[in-house]
Amino acid sequence: MANIQEIAKLAGVSSATVSRVINKRDYVSEETRKRVQAIIDQLDYVPNLNAVSLKKGATKLIGMVIPSFTDSLNVFLKSFTMMAQEHGYNVTLFMTRIDQDKELEALEMLRQKKIDALVLVIRSNDWKTIEHYTKYGPIVTWQRVESEKIPSVFMNQYDGYTLGLEHLYKKGYRKFVNVYGNTTGLNTQSRMLAFKDFCERYELDSHEFRQFYGMGSRQDGEKIAHWWEEIEHKPDAFLTPNDYFAAGLLTEARRSGHSIPEDFAICGFDNMEIAHLLDITTIHYPVYSQAENAFTIIMNKLFGSNLPLLDLDFHLVERKTT
Amino acid sequence: MANIQEIAKLAGVSSATVSRVINKRDYVSEETRKRVQAIIDQLDYVPNLNAVSLKKGATKLIGMVIPSFTDSLNVFLKSFTMMAQEHGYNVTLFMTRIDQDKELEALEMLRQKKIDALVLVIRSNDWKTIEHYTKYGPIVTWQRVESEKIPSVFMNQYDGYTLGLEHLYKKGYRKFVNVYGNTTGLNTQSRMLAFKDFCERYELDSHEFRQFYGMGSRQDGEKIAHWWEEIEHKPDAFLTPNDYFAAGLLTEARRSGHSIPEDFAICGFDNMEIAHLLDITTIHYPVYSQAENAFTIIMNKLFGSNLPLLDLDFHLVERKTT
Repeated sequence: MANIQEIAKLAGVSSATVSRVINKRDYVSEETRKRVQAIIDQLDYVPNLNAVSLKKGATKLIGMVIPSFTDSLNVFLKSFTMMAQEHGYNVTLFMTRIDQDKELEALEMLRQKKIDALVLVIRSNDWKTIEHYTKYGPIVTWQRVESEKIPSVFMNQYDGYTLGLEHLYKKGYRKFVNVYGNTTGLNTQSRMLAFKDFCERYELDSHEFRQFYGMGSRQDGEKIAHWWEEIEHKPDAFLTPNDYFAAGLLTEARRSGHSIPEDFAICGFDNMEIAHLLDITTIHYPVYSQAENAFTIIMNKLFGSNLPLLDLDFHLVERKTT
Repeated sequence: MANIQEIAKLAGVSSATVSRVINKRDYVSEETRKRVQAIIDQLDYVPNLNAVSLKKGATKLIGMVIPSFTDSLNVFLKSFTMMAQEHGYNVTLFMTRIDQDKELEALEMLRQKKIDALVLVIRSNDWKTIEHYTKYGPIVTWQRVESEKIPSVFMNQYDGYTLGLEHLYKKGYRKFVNVYGNTTGLNTQSRMLAFKDFCERYELDSHEFRQFYGMGSRQDGEKIAHWWEEIEHKPDAFLTPNDYFAAGLLTEARRSGHSIPEDFAICGFDNMEIAHLLDITTIHYPVYSQAENAFTIIMNKLFGSNLPLLDLDFHLVERKTT
């Protein structure tokens, strides 16, 4: 393959001049530029971008670590990708399925300058291990983390969850079953605390009904519909980990001939497309804006800028399941 | 930062030996290996992977060009990413929103060896332009294309669409409205041809009802529900571009007090999660397997192997909207 020296020789100029033409940098006379470009075209010369990024120290790639593809992670991915592309970056995906080695692969790529920054949407390794890599480039997360080295775009789910609880209380519901997702996550802990405080506020017995943990899929929601059918002492309201679970619960209950919200109320979480389609009352979670903030934080870290972040707020979307 | 020469000097070996230790290649005595590794660890030396990929000519990245994030594209993305990761590859995303320049950026990255291969799930440039890039690495597409240079994992939608039409006919429906997606795509043309042949087969007037083009969103489906309400001469069956459109049509019709399938039937397409949730009759489209085949084709091209492809078949999933 042609190299810069050959092009320089054929054009009768120095290699530095060829380099200036290729990089569109500094002054080159129009006549020289044309002559060099003609030879580049003729030889079908391709500057090796890996070599270029070696010099510039920027790959214009940002890694994104996700456990799998879920509805809300897709929203994060879409929003982040759009924002990144607008600024000349592309996103390389690492789907971990919570495999620590897969995540380490992404962290190693940051260390080895194969990517410029990393978004750990959901992390697999412990934060201490991850912190070690922040010296190689910006790392941002969607999860709540107490770390000065790893900025987060998390939102306190205590606030969002409380909106749902208060709404159900106002509507007259008193017999609550909470279905929580990942039990080790701080989001679940915030939701549990919100429920505990809520029960104290209204003098409700937080242990009257069984609570569920580690659920989140549409299928899980369907299972809970059957559980509700079979038990004697029935709750009248479900707070769910997300809209897909809520959708499974709602549709399966209806298949069995029950009426929602007459037999029991359902409150979703996230405000995804499915909640609109099925008229599910839910909590709007501004994932789209969180992803934009994640990108802005990375830009600020990479370029020492101080671009402002978007305000993030939960709000209740009342529909027909409460 | 430390380089190989420094490490070699400190270890009292040649740079070639250091290189062999780093790349875990060829024979190095255990004693030498340990001495070199100790110095590497001490200096926190990171082999620059961009330099490595320069030599090996493989970045272990595959580019994926998608127009946006839709339900079925997410399935493709998930399936392809999982398959790629199992084989040591990662996926870099290019979301084009049908912007030709954005796609050219991806094609240029292939030319410049920043990625090893490219999947044009949905392309934006004309095939002639794209073919030009096949000399730089494998390009595979999800779309139907007549090209010897660009393999495709497309399926003839004529077959899938006919399954839906025949099913509706057997169920007694005779007044069909077809809602088509992207009018320029070959998939839409196949569906239109399937309907034309179907009408001839059963001596139906294919022009009795208005047909719709360029639709596909949940919101579009909602609009069509209102259109159905307002017209005098009403069709009794809708064939829709995808399940999300079908879901919008179904839920909005129900909101207005209509019964499905009593007032009219709805057939979806794709068999996504939403179709299960809403009990929508639909055509199962094996996108998951198509994505796996796309990856296998790339492997075969990159390594001259002959790994077999999965069989791809449409099938009807009868639920409660027909």
